[in-house]
Amino acid sequence: MSALRPGLKLRSFARLPAARTISTTPLRAAQPYFSNEPSGPTVSTAIPGPNNKKAAAELNEVFDVRSLNMLTDYTKSIGNYISDLDGNTLLDVYAQIASIPVGYNNPHLEKVATSPEMITSLINRPALGNFPSAEWANILKTGVLKVAPKGLNQVYTAMAGSDANEIAYKAAFMYRRQLERGGPEADFSEQELESTMVNQQPGSPQLSILSFKSAFHGRLFGSLSTTRSKAIHKLDIPAFDWPQATFPSLKYPLEEHAQENAQEEQRCLQEVERLIKEYHNPVAAVMVEPIQSEGGDNHASPAFFQGLRDITKRTNVLFIVDEVQTGVGATGKFWAHDHWNLDTPPDMVTFSKKAQTAGYYYGNPALRPNKPYRQFNTWMGDPSRALIFRGIIEEIERLGLVENTAATGAYLYAGLERLSKQYPQHFQNLRGKGQGTFIAWDSPKRDEILAKAKSVGVNIGGSGQSAVRLRPMLIFQNHHADILLERLEQVIKML
Amino acid sequence: MSALRPGLKLRSFARLPAARTISTTPLRAAQPYFSNEPSGPTVSTAIPGPNNKKAAAELNEVFDVRSLNMLTDYTKSIGNYISDLDGNTLLDVYAQIASIPVGYNNPHLEKVATSPEMITSLINRPALGNFPSAEWANILKTGVLKVAPKGLNQVYTAMAGSDANEIAYKAAFMYRRQLERGGPEADFSEQELESTMVNQQPGSPQLSILSFKSAFHGRLFGSLSTTRSKAIHKLDIPAFDWPQATFPSLKYPLEEHAQENAQEEQRCLQEVERLIKEYHNPVAAVMVEPIQSEGGDNHASPAFFQGLRDITKRTNVLFIVDEVQTGVGATGKFWAHDHWNLDTPPDMVTFSKKAQTAGYYYGNPALRPNKPYRQFNTWMGDPSRALIFRGIIEEIERLGLVENTAATGAYLYAGLERLSKQYPQHFQNLRGKGQGTFIAWDSPKRDEILAKAKSVGVNIGGSGQSAVRLRPMLIFQNHHADILLERLEQVIKML
Repeated sequence: MSALRPGLKLRSFARLPAARTISTTPLRAAQPYFSNEPSGPTVSTAIPGPNNKKAAAELNEVFDVRSLNMLTDYTKSIGNYISDLDGNTLLDVYAQIASIPVGYNNPHLEKVATSPEMITSLINRPALGNFPSAEWANILKTGVLKVAPKGLNQVYTAMAGSDANEIAYKAAFMYRRQLERGGPEADFSEQELESTMVNQQPGSPQLSILSFKSAFHGRLFGSLSTTRSKAIHKLDIPAFDWPQATFPSLKYPLEEHAQENAQEEQRCLQEVERLIKEYHNPVAAVMVEPIQSEGGDNHASPAFFQGLRDITKRTNVLFIVDEVQTGVGATGKFWAHDHWNLDTPPDMVTFSKKAQTAGYYYGNPALRPNKPYRQFNTWMGDPSRALIFRGIIEEIERLGLVENTAATGAYLYAGLERLSKQYPQHFQNLRGKGQGTFIAWDSPKRDEILAKAKSVGVNIGGSGQSAVRLRPMLIFQNHHADILLERLEQVIKML
Repeated sequence: MSALRPGLKLRSFARLPAARTISTTPLRAAQPYFSNEPSGPTVSTAIPGPNNKKAAAELNEVFDVRSLNMLTDYTKSIGNYISDLDGNTLLDVYAQIASIPVGYNNPHLEKVATSPEMITSLINRPALGNFPSAEWANILKTGVLKVAPKGLNQVYTAMAGSDANEIAYKAAFMYRRQLERGGPEADFSEQELESTMVNQQPGSPQLSILSFKSAFHGRLFGSLSTTRSKAIHKLDIPAFDWPQATFPSLKYPLEEHAQENAQEEQRCLQEVERLIKEYHNPVAAVMVEPIQSEGGDNHASPAFFQGLRDITKRTNVLFIVDEVQTGVGATGKFWAHDHWNLDTPPDMVTFSKKAQTAGYYYGNPALRPNKPYRQFNTWMGDPSRALIFRGIIEEIERLGLVENTAATGAYLYAGLERLSKQYPQHFQNLRGKGQGTFIAWDSPKRDEILAKAKSVGVNIGGSGQSAVRLRPMLIFQNHHADILLERLEQVIKML
């Protein structure tokens, strides 16, 4: 019995080998994960169509809709295909904002959504720091923590990427001051206790987080102080006086600019080290995305990140990796920083989006603050969303979706390379080779491409000033890549 | 068919008049809302008992449990009663952290949790700013917005109290700078566009939010800068240089100190006005709780809040009311600021906790930022939690729970007044008369009282340095109040 609304027929999954665990053999491309997905997009009206326009006007009465992309009929969306209110069905390589991992109306997630555990967590929302359920440890161990990055075995749960990043910053500040104070047993001074109540140092110290130009780490006050993507994200909001370093600006194709790119990365690393040593507000942590996502899909090499890890170790500064957009399989590894082969793991790794919940992983027990109630809030996450993440992990393992994404990404990248040779003006700086489907390129007519893509049945997003960014789901397969490549060429011909 | 786990028998609700809407007649005290609630607490082991201790040790491996109050068996908890893992069942007048409104395992919420709309929102989590569902407008209008404070008809949705407060602050800063710039059409200057990318003014202006001593508004970087509850909440975290004013310190009983209290409130209002006029970082908004909750249940009179509204209007500063803990019925009105009879509504009202979702209400269209993507994030809330809030609102209306809370609160307050006369040393500054069940008092042995209360079957919380705070659910009735009063007296006799 489907619990979904009448009229929606849930399509059954293709039969796949049972109890499949992580394997290095990708599934055959011909075997679709969603057997009843449409065979291709359907566009029957201009987009937005009349129903969408009407519904948007209605929503606008009570909710700001100026960032609206497309009002969606989620009951009709399936797998890689998103449906609007006018009968249009688009191949979705944006996946909300890179946040849907295993397809719309995934039947396994539907089972999770109707499970007794889900129902009790929805109607009896716990304050996880005070009154966790007896099952919470098990939900973490069989879910969130089952996929913890190598070397990290503990988690603080949160609600979304922004607050996950902020509580990681808070942990970094507390850790730093604890070291300066002489360890976890050292008491706060009277001066600290008094000054913090009026937001002054030493109790509220003027420490900082170092982030990179073009970085995006969220939009709350602490995270926004590390976000450097676009002025419109930051204008009029007070910010902390924290330092930014230059993120490498690589030239493409990488093979042709190897030496120049290596020099660029060295220059950036030297700037990081100089800022850590000299910035007037001492740096407690370096925060970095494996691939700068909102900032325009800016990549750097494993050598750069190894360098960051070395510098932070040498200068006794924490190293936090923001995997909010890169995490959970999209780069062909479960975590993008798995590509780096670090000797020492990051101190903290934050996650959200495709995890459908959020938080940060850590390993060093000293990153638990020395007293209770220092890292605390009412809910500290949401078990119902943690259950969904567990379901996602089960799907990823059962279907080998990380390996699928690596293989499909290679296939798609090869196709895009062909297009970039044919239409070099529209496919500049193609990047993301070997990074699963986390692929982007620049185009002078980017906004026109995104708009026209809808008219030929593809939903695509942009990033930065001029990048077309692909963020398909982990269930994106070669036959979807074929459709995408074909439709992209159609769009180029329309320009 | 119950979707809850086998072994849990869902108790049916007592039959009540059908289709009951908001009414001024409270239900008879003898009519229990949960007909199969236990008739009283059961305590069969020391608390924590052996099962709880074992489970806590297991959870501690992966999750910080030092703030643990009680591991909970939510499948056995029912109505006003919370169950632990050792067969103990306690009358719960803390309700997580004042965040459970209509009882554990409420059957109506169970229906909501298993509805098709819930399932689709759990498995197809939308990015509400870009791809809202066709139903989102309707979910808002029939839920969150149905109970919007008088004069406010729009909402920005969020995840929890902290980020709801921060996005309200952001709206205040953008509004202020827009006025200074000359209106929504005025462009940003080149200097603003450049300076904000390095976190400097004028693009990242040194504006401030004024909050009150002992206030609690959350623990992210912006909200924590307005939180002034306890040093342990703030230590080691960088904070903005924002002003704090003194919150009135009233003397009890109020009737005996009317003139002195009025003078105290005037003094505080003058300080607010002086700070707005003189603080070196200009004040964009005043943020206040109707009753300072975490800070120790500090009350002020309607005259004080009317004065705040007047001052903020006169000085062209926004007035934000933080109803995260006071909202959704607990004070015997749906919103605590309904007690004030303001001529002009607050500019923004934030909510979370008993709403099980979060956000801020506003009415002035100019509080929508002048361009899209200025107030934005990936999820912008969670429709599944908004659906739960709608279910809660339906229960509140059906059962007349705001009126119930007003009536039960009066009954409970009278009982506590009797106890305070009998045991004046343990019931100091009893407060919350006419504020529903939002009642507190001070006791020099507060922590001992909270601990011993568990041993006699009652789960109670504290706030501030010495307050016992009552935060029962909206389904708390006179027969529960009788049990609470009896057990409190037992505890006092044990001291």
